[in-house]
Amino acid sequence: MHVTSEQRLDDGVLERAFTLDEIPGIVWTPASASAAAPVPLILLGHPPLGLHRMYPRLVARARHSAAEGFATATIELPGSGDRPRWPAVERARAGLRRTMEAGEPISNEIVDSLVLPLVEKAVPEWQAALDALLSLPGIGGPVGYSGGVISIGIRLAVVEPRIAAAGLFAGSLVPRAMFEEARQVTVPLHVLLQWDDERNDRQAALDLFDAFGSKEKTLHATMGGHTGVPDSAADSAARFFTRHLK
Amino acid sequence: MHVTSEQRLDDGVLERAFTLDEIPGIVWTPASASAAAPVPLILLGHPPLGLHRMYPRLVARARHSAAEGFATATIELPGSGDRPRWPAVERARAGLRRTMEAGEPISNEIVDSLVLPLVEKAVPEWQAALDALLSLPGIGGPVGYSGGVISIGIRLAVVEPRIAAAGLFAGSLVPRAMFEEARQVTVPLHVLLQWDDERNDRQAALDLFDAFGSKEKTLHATMGGHTGVPDSAADSAARFFTRHLK
Repeated sequence: MHVTSEQRLDDGVLERAFTLDEIPGIVWTPASASAAAPVPLILLGHPPLGLHRMYPRLVARARHSAAEGFATATIELPGSGDRPRWPAVERARAGLRRTMEAGEPISNEIVDSLVLPLVEKAVPEWQAALDALLSLPGIGGPVGYSGGVISIGIRLAVVEPRIAAAGLFAGSLVPRAMFEEARQVTVPLHVLLQWDDERNDRQAALDLFDAFGSKEKTLHATMGGHTGVPDSAADSAARFFTRHLK
Repeated sequence: MHVTSEQRLDDGVLERAFTLDEIPGIVWTPASASAAAPVPLILLGHPPLGLHRMYPRLVARARHSAAEGFATATIELPGSGDRPRWPAVERARAGLRRTMEAGEPISNEIVDSLVLPLVEKAVPEWQAALDALLSLPGIGGPVGYSGGVISIGIRLAVVEPRIAAAGLFAGSLVPRAMFEEARQVTVPLHVLLQWDDERNDRQAALDLFDAFGSKEKTLHATMGGHTGVPDSAADSAARFFTRHLK
């Protein structure tokens, strides 16, 4: 892990940009974190729109989490932002866009071609980032995963034993294969659902929630569209992580 | 309103038992409440099992609410507890019991005969109680309704303009007519759903949530059966009332 820049935000949060095997990332630690008093870590998932574009929302989540005593970190997704373009996924995205513009139903094939390669490639990268992040002084366990592409969160929760709790956003297209994988998730789970999300199939989201194997799972549904998540829902997710990572 | 007994609980909460037109009730006020500093009120709904039997759960909810700065109050439902028996509703309950024991589907007729008379009779009683409660020194507005028979909560939210927010428990049988009535509910709403509630039709609960006319509504689903509501769900409801009644 190579730290490329470092700044102290006005609320005392330390923000460090880094690269790890040429993947850009950012890690935020609260002012209180030290080698003697390490804090838990929340991995901040995000949609594949590039870290630059997502930065305002990511830093807001990082500040909010820091105020609750958590370090947070994120890495660029494959094919996004400053990372090399990924023609296969770009073709799949173009296919999705055409289908949506034509008002046609989105086939399982389109969803699979869009999401499954991303999951396959991204999850080992998040695991490698986790190795590096947990070696930083001031960051300890346990580790949570929050938001972003829900299929990445599902796979991470299944394959990565250091993930102790996951807060997922039921707001993306989910390959059928991930419903089976969801049954293997056993960590405490908090699922956020925007009831009127225009980009989301509500019944599929409810079915997915039902499929999760976790004994402790919470569904928090609020009104509004994809980007209209109210503050109360963010608070609810924050309390979930405080209950399970502290 | 005639106060029949009064005691100060160990956390300073004042508990007063009363009767109003021969209907028994209980009102709890936090130690801080005074004529000069009146507090908001939450009406505590409950299933028709009698106030004596429900007392441990009611007083726990009252103490929790008092700690958040709310007065709470409840009255006995018609045909329950020490109130005169109500043969029509007892027959409907016996019919429901037989149907469930036989493992047969519960017909709309059974649900209607069980719930609609209760709603018709109980709602004006809660409104009369509200008149009396709001005249007590130390209790001001706004007023919330919490839990209990969901159809009573729906009707109250529709006909009683003093109800400013409602926290409902999707855990009871709901007549089809109440789905139409739910569309007329416009106050902020927090619906608690036990995902595996053995006494509840999950899809009907989701349809009912969808039907509510409120612009601001939250569904909070947690794992477990009818009586297994976790503390985190109670906390979530408490924060809902704090957001909307303070």
